[in-house]
Amino acid sequence: MDNKKLYVVGIGPGDRSYLTARASEALEGAEVIAGYTVYTELIKKYYPDKEYIVTPMTKERERCVLALEAADGGRITAMVCSGDAGVYGMAGLILELACDYPKVDVEIVPGVTAALSGAALLGAPIGHDFAVISLSDILTPWEKIEKRLRMAAQGDFCIVLYNPSSRRRSGYLKRACDILLEYMSGATVCGYVRSIGREGEESRVLSLSELAETEADMFTTVFIGSMSTALMNDKMVTKRI
Amino acid sequence: MDNKKLYVVGIGPGDRSYLTARASEALEGAEVIAGYTVYTELIKKYYPDKEYIVTPMTKERERCVLALEAADGGRITAMVCSGDAGVYGMAGLILELACDYPKVDVEIVPGVTAALSGAALLGAPIGHDFAVISLSDILTPWEKIEKRLRMAAQGDFCIVLYNPSSRRRSGYLKRACDILLEYMSGATVCGYVRSIGREGEESRVLSLSELAETEADMFTTVFIGSMSTALMNDKMVTKRI
Repeated sequence: MDNKKLYVVGIGPGDRSYLTARASEALEGAEVIAGYTVYTELIKKYYPDKEYIVTPMTKERERCVLALEAADGGRITAMVCSGDAGVYGMAGLILELACDYPKVDVEIVPGVTAALSGAALLGAPIGHDFAVISLSDILTPWEKIEKRLRMAAQGDFCIVLYNPSSRRRSGYLKRACDILLEYMSGATVCGYVRSIGREGEESRVLSLSELAETEADMFTTVFIGSMSTALMNDKMVTKRI
Repeated sequence: MDNKKLYVVGIGPGDRSYLTARASEALEGAEVIAGYTVYTELIKKYYPDKEYIVTPMTKERERCVLALEAADGGRITAMVCSGDAGVYGMAGLILELACDYPKVDVEIVPGVTAALSGAALLGAPIGHDFAVISLSDILTPWEKIEKRLRMAAQGDFCIVLYNPSSRRRSGYLKRACDILLEYMSGATVCGYVRSIGREGEESRVLSLSELAETEADMFTTVFIGSMSTALMNDKMVTKRI
């Protein structure tokens, strides 16, 4: 076994209760923990005695290289990602860059992504087929995002929106809802969750028309029901039809 | 606080290392554990001293009613689901039936669904927007499944297929691939994972044309890449484009 080890760890929404046993084990065994500031802050209180490599959100490539360098230098390293390691996480970039570090053994440790942790708070909105779409157009052209929204609506998928908004993209959730409203009823059962498992956690069930008039932020995950989604005791439930 | 408690717990693919801390806590605290035979068998070795309510796969409604009755009778109960509690799991049916048991407090405990645990073994296939589709037509008309496959292909989503095959539906994976091949290149990077985290775990990366000629079973999860999916060091990686 190679002992140059890099774990890419999905830590779930933040609270320790969402960590898997394997994720805890990887973090406990790591000498170095790398990540974006917000996520390392969530982890630091549980694992204070580690060396931390922290970079801001835009410096993803640099962060991955630093983590690979640390692992290649012989220190057991863990790169933390919020939610799952692979869903809009660092796993792909690490695997791409790892081609230059053939001695580093990369292990992806999956975690509870916001589509799952958010769904559990709202009820069972993704009990049947669903599509996950990020509204961030930093790397993806808006035309591609719009096409996916149209296809997901026509396929009657439940839709989970990641990164529905940010300061720079304040009108994006409304734009997305307006596209969906071309195909779907304004009464479609929707929901959103904010700051899952963290201070200020908030969830709300509402109609698609109401959602179009709602302000979201980058810690919000949005759920749009399919034709089989109904409200039951104030919970959002998609039947397996 | 009401003490009539029913947890619906996603246990991940089966091995204890995938359990979240909250899921372990719920199972440890439960007096009664309900579930489908295959999943309760996975759990029993860790929690042997519980009362088990076990029903076969087709008896889902009965299983949920028995779990709700146990909870309503004052025994702390956990309904276990493989993967996540909500993704093709029992959360929806429990919430629906729970309307008749107003004193039972239902808590959904999310878990690592096969889209995430399988992705981690293959690399990072769902690093960007993706769609999850079940090929089981027990409850869903095939026309609806086919429509979703067509929409997901046209939207250039990464696609995760659950229940790709069974004894009764032996040709379904090929049928699905043939539909996707109307829109996608035969060289599209695909992968599958079988018996994740269990004895006989197996994963393979292959092309869409090869996938169309592959036999799957009900413990297989299939991943179909988007136009941004590539092979890197034999790993399936979808770039965030």
